[in-house]
Amino acid sequence: MGLLVLKFGGTSVANIPAIENVASKVAAEVGRGHKCAVVVSAMSGVTNQLVAYCSEISQIFDTREYDSVVASGEQVTSGLLALALQKRGIPARSWLGWQVPIVTNDVHGKARIRAIETETLEKSIGQGEGAVIAGFQGIAPDGRITTLGRGGSDTSAVAVAAALRADRCDIYTDVDGVYTADPRIVNRARKINKISYEEMLEMASVGAKVLQTRSVELAMKEKVPVQVLSSFEEAAGSDLPGTLVVDEDTIVEQEVVSGVTHSRDEAKVTLRNLPDVPGVAARVFGPLADNSINVDMIVQNVSPDKAKTDLTFTVGRADLPKTLEVLDAAMKDLEGATSESSADVSKISIIGIGMRSYVGVASKMFKTLAEKGINIQVITTSEIKVSVLIAEEYTELAVRSLHTAYGLDQE
Amino acid sequence: MGLLVLKFGGTSVANIPAIENVASKVAAEVGRGHKCAVVVSAMSGVTNQLVAYCSEISQIFDTREYDSVVASGEQVTSGLLALALQKRGIPARSWLGWQVPIVTNDVHGKARIRAIETETLEKSIGQGEGAVIAGFQGIAPDGRITTLGRGGSDTSAVAVAAALRADRCDIYTDVDGVYTADPRIVNRARKINKISYEEMLEMASVGAKVLQTRSVELAMKEKVPVQVLSSFEEAAGSDLPGTLVVDEDTIVEQEVVSGVTHSRDEAKVTLRNLPDVPGVAARVFGPLADNSINVDMIVQNVSPDKAKTDLTFTVGRADLPKTLEVLDAAMKDLEGATSESSADVSKISIIGIGMRSYVGVASKMFKTLAEKGINIQVITTSEIKVSVLIAEEYTELAVRSLHTAYGLDQE
Repeated sequence: MGLLVLKFGGTSVANIPAIENVASKVAAEVGRGHKCAVVVSAMSGVTNQLVAYCSEISQIFDTREYDSVVASGEQVTSGLLALALQKRGIPARSWLGWQVPIVTNDVHGKARIRAIETETLEKSIGQGEGAVIAGFQGIAPDGRITTLGRGGSDTSAVAVAAALRADRCDIYTDVDGVYTADPRIVNRARKINKISYEEMLEMASVGAKVLQTRSVELAMKEKVPVQVLSSFEEAAGSDLPGTLVVDEDTIVEQEVVSGVTHSRDEAKVTLRNLPDVPGVAARVFGPLADNSINVDMIVQNVSPDKAKTDLTFTVGRADLPKTLEVLDAAMKDLEGATSESSADVSKISIIGIGMRSYVGVASKMFKTLAEKGINIQVITTSEIKVSVLIAEEYTELAVRSLHTAYGLDQE
Repeated sequence: MGLLVLKFGGTSVANIPAIENVASKVAAEVGRGHKCAVVVSAMSGVTNQLVAYCSEISQIFDTREYDSVVASGEQVTSGLLALALQKRGIPARSWLGWQVPIVTNDVHGKARIRAIETETLEKSIGQGEGAVIAGFQGIAPDGRITTLGRGGSDTSAVAVAAALRADRCDIYTDVDGVYTADPRIVNRARKINKISYEEMLEMASVGAKVLQTRSVELAMKEKVPVQVLSSFEEAAGSDLPGTLVVDEDTIVEQEVVSGVTHSRDEAKVTLRNLPDVPGVAARVFGPLADNSINVDMIVQNVSPDKAKTDLTFTVGRADLPKTLEVLDAAMKDLEGATSESSADVSKISIIGIGMRSYVGVASKMFKTLAEKGINIQVITTSEIKVSVLIAEEYTELAVRSLHTAYGLDQE
């Protein structure tokens, strides 16, 4: 018995039968003696429709009006879920961002939560009322509606859980947990029972889009245990059917490598014969940043000609045309410099908090790939992650080989 | 130059091109030097969809949640219209009911406006900002969203106009004004340039559904001049292209009869051989009221048998089956009493504030109908209206004959 925050995304509340299903899941938790606060997204498709309305009027719009328009989606689902709970005999009411209030800064369209005033909300929950909170939205200091940006409902849920000092935040989604690798590629992939915040963050940043990065950061900062689980499968008996994201201290058995992820959303750019003088990197990356192009892996090599250098980096695949355009302008007066690019690349990462206390983890990765004849184009590492860039056609082979090599295959 | 409140209904904001059209109309008023507050309904069909969602979950629902759900429709259009105005270079912002705030009582689903706090709104308008106000909604004293009931956006508009002491409230709709009769029946019907609040009220109550009755009552009480006009036709040159609803004192040329209206939404019930003792009427009408059945015309005749009486009354046609059911129970112990009913009836009314100072207005009506061989079943009168119930098949003939008889035909 305790206080749970449950979050349901757009596909979980896509229509009235889906909302009824969500109400049943909440009712089951109430039946187990838990008090519940539920955070909901808009019905799937609704937010896109509302955004399309705004864009149809003008490509460049006032984000204050945009926020008011798109926040209406969560307003609808919060009211409907409250009704569905009441039908099941559970006292419940909806809470909009401004009603709680969930106070944000005034950066409309991607606001950040500053404070959640829980007094009224806690009183309501304390009286046994289920709270259904519209996700994704808040209120700016001047009283205008704000939204937290795409996927912001995860952040709403974790922030509410932190503010209410909830025992757990359950994020219901369309997958039943976090896997050691994409099960569509590795059929022996296992669901991870417990994973640390740090690992989850790295997973999210390299393509396993189960949770919003911001929500994981917030959970880590506020030490909110988060469970990822499916709203479509029945949890057969288990108390914790999904993947629990927790502080690393609470994970007794640390794996050296927890998971292997891949991302095909990559493109590689190599610049050759750049003058090897201070300021060149800034000259290349400055204009990219100015154009909101996110650069990921960067490697600089010494070229045979000592006065020149080669630079390789990756960008999101969708950003490649824009990147080349920006580079064309930036490199105009760098005589002799040339650029090459390729979108046929894939980023493979191994992630594991145990890496910090073991040696030879990265070299095992390189050896495994070499044995399969897979050439490594770029390498980057962090404390708990090693990423390599390879030719896209080797993606599945690489992921499967590494999954086996690090002992992750299901028995 | 002055302050106008413009109200646009669901068909006027049905989609983005329609919203752009509305923005152009507002821009034209701004161009003429007016300051504008605009009240909008939800895109047509949206409110029905939201109501259907609530009903799909439960036939009996918490109206507080219902209000939060359906109020989202106006939230969307207010934001979109603000964007469309901004695109035209007009500074504008949306205002939700709770942001103004428009404070109502807590009768959710059909709340009444108690007060509109205009301080912030007036400051914004004073700075030259167009105010786009979500119609139909307000905020209850406890901070929950309320709605004003169907057609409530008209009431929102008039209330805002009163609170802002606006020079006029223009209600844009899909007709270009109020006519002397339904132009689909009487092709010589004329658009009325000016009509008094009292006449408009009677028109609304007998089937000319151009304005919500409540909004006209409020306009009369607060002396807000209201113009009904079309959002789809271009006003060619005229300053007041629609019908102006104003205080009778400001109408110089009073017609004896301003209009002829008809309603087919009627059903007649006759109860025979009721005991002619005190309390019988209460015994009949009490249970009808308890079942929310609205009784309109009532006539009681003396029956040949002095101890008995006959009673005829009308109800809305959709209420007839329920009415008969309720009467069956109510008349169980009234020995010998019988009931008859007919749905093939139509109510024809002549309305005119001039009636008060002329004699023979009603008798001309009866004579005109008699000359056409139309039998009058029931008569009721008010100070400025005479209504008769006739067989439905004579509807068009009756309306046309009366329209001619009272000199309303267009030259």
